[in-house]
Amino acid sequence: MDRTTEALVNETLCGDRRSLARLISLVEKDRSVRSQVMRHLYPRAGRAHYVGLTGPPGGGKSTLVAGLTSIARANGAKVGVVAVDPTSPYSGGALLGDRVRMQEHHVDDGVFIRSMATRGDAGGLSQVATDVARIIGASGKDMVMVETVGVGQNEADTSQIVDTTIVVTVPESGDYVQLMKAGLMETADVVVVNKADHAGADQMIAQLASMLCESRTEHAWWRVHVVATQAANGQGVDELYWHVRGHLDALERSGELARRRSQQRMKELGCILEESLLCAVKEAMEEDDGFNPCLEKVAQGELDPYAAAAEVLGSPGLLQRCLQRAGKCRDMGAQSLRED
Amino acid sequence: MDRTTEALVNETLCGDRRSLARLISLVEKDRSVRSQVMRHLYPRAGRAHYVGLTGPPGGGKSTLVAGLTSIARANGAKVGVVAVDPTSPYSGGALLGDRVRMQEHHVDDGVFIRSMATRGDAGGLSQVATDVARIIGASGKDMVMVETVGVGQNEADTSQIVDTTIVVTVPESGDYVQLMKAGLMETADVVVVNKADHAGADQMIAQLASMLCESRTEHAWWRVHVVATQAANGQGVDELYWHVRGHLDALERSGELARRRSQQRMKELGCILEESLLCAVKEAMEEDDGFNPCLEKVAQGELDPYAAAAEVLGSPGLLQRCLQRAGKCRDMGAQSLRED
Repeated sequence: MDRTTEALVNETLCGDRRSLARLISLVEKDRSVRSQVMRHLYPRAGRAHYVGLTGPPGGGKSTLVAGLTSIARANGAKVGVVAVDPTSPYSGGALLGDRVRMQEHHVDDGVFIRSMATRGDAGGLSQVATDVARIIGASGKDMVMVETVGVGQNEADTSQIVDTTIVVTVPESGDYVQLMKAGLMETADVVVVNKADHAGADQMIAQLASMLCESRTEHAWWRVHVVATQAANGQGVDELYWHVRGHLDALERSGELARRRSQQRMKELGCILEESLLCAVKEAMEEDDGFNPCLEKVAQGELDPYAAAAEVLGSPGLLQRCLQRAGKCRDMGAQSLRED
Repeated sequence: MDRTTEALVNETLCGDRRSLARLISLVEKDRSVRSQVMRHLYPRAGRAHYVGLTGPPGGGKSTLVAGLTSIARANGAKVGVVAVDPTSPYSGGALLGDRVRMQEHHVDDGVFIRSMATRGDAGGLSQVATDVARIIGASGKDMVMVETVGVGQNEADTSQIVDTTIVVTVPESGDYVQLMKAGLMETADVVVVNKADHAGADQMIAQLASMLCESRTEHAWWRVHVVATQAANGQGVDELYWHVRGHLDALERSGELARRRSQQRMKELGCILEESLLCAVKEAMEEDDGFNPCLEKVAQGELDPYAAAAEVLGSPGLLQRCLQRAGKCRDMGAQSLRED
């Protein structure tokens, strides 16, 4: 790790906001730096409470995040936000319209907000988004919120890396069957019906509550509640905040937090390994001349993808070079650390 | 490949409906059978026109698919449908409520419908869903529709494996900014505003049309149109059908079809390789004793995931065993083929 990065890491651990922002940019750009940085920061990331907000688009998640941030600040807690926008794989940029509502917090030193694009490669929440949340946590935030758009598997991924999962829905987003289909309810620790003044809200709250009663195995240590909010005017957001804090207390008292954290680490290990291997294969396919004849044949239609995959996977030389790439990338990280 | 599977493959190629259904079930269950089956069927899968329908949940995609199917049948085309439901990672089952509308087609031999759950592992559309679409295509269907729920990256994946991408939206699903955020518009070959009799439809159609004019690089061979439909009563569906057929004609005339097919094959090769490697890493983490001490330490919190990943990737023995797993799985497939 070079001196600049080392300085950024140390200043980030001290809570310096600009260094945190610069460190995240660095980490987003360069995988090998990320690996080194994370090994320094990860042990300090565990003190924050990680809260995921997920649900269909247009449900007012960003407004809720802004509201929760205000209440947390009023109660002396430092807040981090990672807003993960689904974004075009072509333009690579995220539109930040919703983020405008967070503007009041941008001048507050106790709040750090980062919008990022999902990278498409390895499913729902990318490992880099998880890493950014952990970096923000390590910078001394008490609560780190991760906001994602979810209609299916994605939010299950989020729930595997946060301590508390809030599922946000609205009356007009469709009935509870849609939520069931998306598998959202099974990961929820807290369910929010936002825009609770809109038509159909009471019915939806009742449906969700009865569904939660029927379908979920009750844990002795926590019961999933449905919280009605009107994020736009702040109604119910205070109740939601204390409910989320209550969940953290319950996690700690019951020993469930330790169990979830252990699962999170295992999940992250799996993701890091997958990411390293996929990256190595991709690099090899682009750069390793050994792949060329095979790729050319697939492009031309002379070889179908299945035959080509068998050829690649049957050639130990090619695969070994892939692995060396994956290993080397990590080794470099490990070596620089040892040199420190 | 055993005799039963071989018989199923041959009967599928002859268009037998029950064999097709049984073959898909087999392929969904067993990865190594899938690899063998696909190598037989893939070369025959290219005659179908692959059409993706994607968009936010609740937009009426299933009703549109049912309508398009009726019109295709009336025009003598055989139709396949793959409906990919986001589903719970825990229950593993898909709710099939929407499929009820397709009931009239279930007794028609010229129509084959398959609902399936997305598998979470490797992002948006799983490779197995792509494979099922290709198998249905190889069974002699003229048009294969792939219906997915999309709010982001997912549908970009769909667009990479189909020839024509239809993005379906409704006035109440939010304004065009939401669609932009989801990166949906950039992958669309045809844009549908369904429920076009609802409030705000005209405004949305105008917004989308002007946005398409401004933001998209115009191809000389095709201009993206906005089609207004009311799927529930069939209005506009005929126009949509012929528009989609027109897109296929334009693809063929311009040579773009060959380019897209080449890209599809490359994409599929990448997915197959990724899937093989991810599967191998997971198997190894579960079964290979060499991983145990490392995993135990991560679970206990004695080792953070980054340090553990460096340890695993730095140990050539472990990784090599992973690769052998990936290779072996494929090799078996290749060998059985050669034995045929």
